[in-house]
Amino acid sequence: MAGVLVSGAGGFIGLPTIVRLAGQGSEVHALSTRAYPPQLPGVRWHRLDLFDTRSVDELVGELAPEQLIHLAWCTETGRCLHAPENVTWVERSLHLLRAFVRCGGRRAVMLGTCAEYDWSAVDGPFCELTSAPAPATLYGVAKDALRRVASAYLAQEEVELAWARPFFLYGPREAPARLVPSLVRALLAGHTVATGSDERVRDFMYVQDVADALVALRGSSVVGAVNIASGLSTTIGEIVDRIVELTGGGELVRRGALPDRPGEPRQLLADVGRLHDEVGYRSRWNLVDGLAATVSWWREHESAGANTSPTRRGRSGTPQRM
Amino acid sequence: MAGVLVSGAGGFIGLPTIVRLAGQGSEVHALSTRAYPPQLPGVRWHRLDLFDTRSVDELVGELAPEQLIHLAWCTETGRCLHAPENVTWVERSLHLLRAFVRCGGRRAVMLGTCAEYDWSAVDGPFCELTSAPAPATLYGVAKDALRRVASAYLAQEEVELAWARPFFLYGPREAPARLVPSLVRALLAGHTVATGSDERVRDFMYVQDVADALVALRGSSVVGAVNIASGLSTTIGEIVDRIVELTGGGELVRRGALPDRPGEPRQLLADVGRLHDEVGYRSRWNLVDGLAATVSWWREHESAGANTSPTRRGRSGTPQRM
Repeated sequence: MAGVLVSGAGGFIGLPTIVRLAGQGSEVHALSTRAYPPQLPGVRWHRLDLFDTRSVDELVGELAPEQLIHLAWCTETGRCLHAPENVTWVERSLHLLRAFVRCGGRRAVMLGTCAEYDWSAVDGPFCELTSAPAPATLYGVAKDALRRVASAYLAQEEVELAWARPFFLYGPREAPARLVPSLVRALLAGHTVATGSDERVRDFMYVQDVADALVALRGSSVVGAVNIASGLSTTIGEIVDRIVELTGGGELVRRGALPDRPGEPRQLLADVGRLHDEVGYRSRWNLVDGLAATVSWWREHESAGANTSPTRRGRSGTPQRM
Repeated sequence: MAGVLVSGAGGFIGLPTIVRLAGQGSEVHALSTRAYPPQLPGVRWHRLDLFDTRSVDELVGELAPEQLIHLAWCTETGRCLHAPENVTWVERSLHLLRAFVRCGGRRAVMLGTCAEYDWSAVDGPFCELTSAPAPATLYGVAKDALRRVASAYLAQEEVELAWARPFFLYGPREAPARLVPSLVRALLAGHTVATGSDERVRDFMYVQDVADALVALRGSSVVGAVNIASGLSTTIGEIVDRIVELTGGGELVRRGALPDRPGEPRQLLADVGRLHDEVGYRSRWNLVDGLAATVSWWREHESAGANTSPTRRGRSGTPQRM
């Protein structure tokens, strides 16, 4: 029994995660529904649909992984917060977890979300130990409920569970309809683009940092919820400014033209004490370098044409608000 | 589209529930894994394993029930509080619920548990609106998490959800290892039997009352959590006294010989304001009549031999503490 099984391994967070794991010499078993995932040194791909529970049982039984990093979830931009598929993903995640435990798994890292927190409480950064979960969306509720069951179940089975709560992230290969890609792509193409209010404050983390934090968390013995975040306050206005510096076309941005959603919080920040002090991980990427890498990636992939661009395309000029 | 689909219909609560539903003229579709469930007027049985998700989809699609009463869960006495099957039942319950919603369901009654409440907080009766859930067992956590996901999902889909929280119940056909059946059976057979401390206070409700309350809840438009309980305080000592009056053999009972579990609460009581005022249901059975009916049932079924006795048998003389 050895190795780490990674679900959602072909995704936005998954791909940099398995690259890092393989780079550390781990035996990486990567799950994806794709027929032709990118070939990476040290990564063994397994084509698997997590909804096919019998195949899950067979594969997990065959591999008997010691560790699990469960990243797969429905991620369709915009719909994801309220999609009924969130319910299905609770079922599938629990099934995968049971197979993992049954086959001798010892440590699981599962992906939660900052949407588990009470977004109406904006007094300060959210802390894993003192901020009570109070999710307001089906996505947040589903993740919160999964965490509750997984925590009680794995504690009883004496399997470690670390519950990673990423905040806001960006980077190469992000779904095109989200804020950063939609801005970058519109400006690179010379289209006008509308944004929401500049003043909103968020914790942004570059996706490679998120992946590296997950790998560090997996390698630690920390259990329970851990915020995966930079610990820094960034306004949406700063994100827009930095992107415009990299792409030009500032006159194409209609700042504040998108109305804020009712009840959308002014600030969403993370206490990163556990990540820094217990996991021993700190962000390595600053916003300028992260956005520069992101813009470079889009320049390359937008010009390379349809073959290498992401499969789900957002409508240009209508970025998703964050 | 019409009718009510009842899962766990052959069980302790399920059987009196479907009898009452059929008596009210409802179109009752009863689910059971049994090959030969009892034939009841007005009840149409469907043999179905809720773990066979494809068959669930087919049957629910065919019936398109307007209402669902979901009672099925793992109930193996003693093991049930910590059984890994609690996790599986979250999965299966969510799958059934999705099929119900997809096929046009309008109102669901699902079975929670008083174990969702914080049993370490024994200041007074638990109230659905003011007592925060804080389950301490995998059973309680699983039910609590299911309620969270089901509530958010059904609210979004505009399907009504009533979440029934029964407290302590007793009656014919209860699993033999539990307090009342084990006492009754031991005393009827002339065996000695040990009990825990007499002073513990619980809310006990006769199972026909529980079934009738569920049927009333199903017929109401009340949504959210509703305690299913008598609103009365009964000590374990009173239960033992009443049973001894009915069976004789008081000298066979070793009162207080079973040590209480660490942290076992002195009292577990229910606020029944919602049940009384909003659902409009009040207990019809008092303890004396309920226990008399229970003892009569055991007299008849113990003497009738193995064919009619329950399938799971507890060890005589070792009642489960409640």
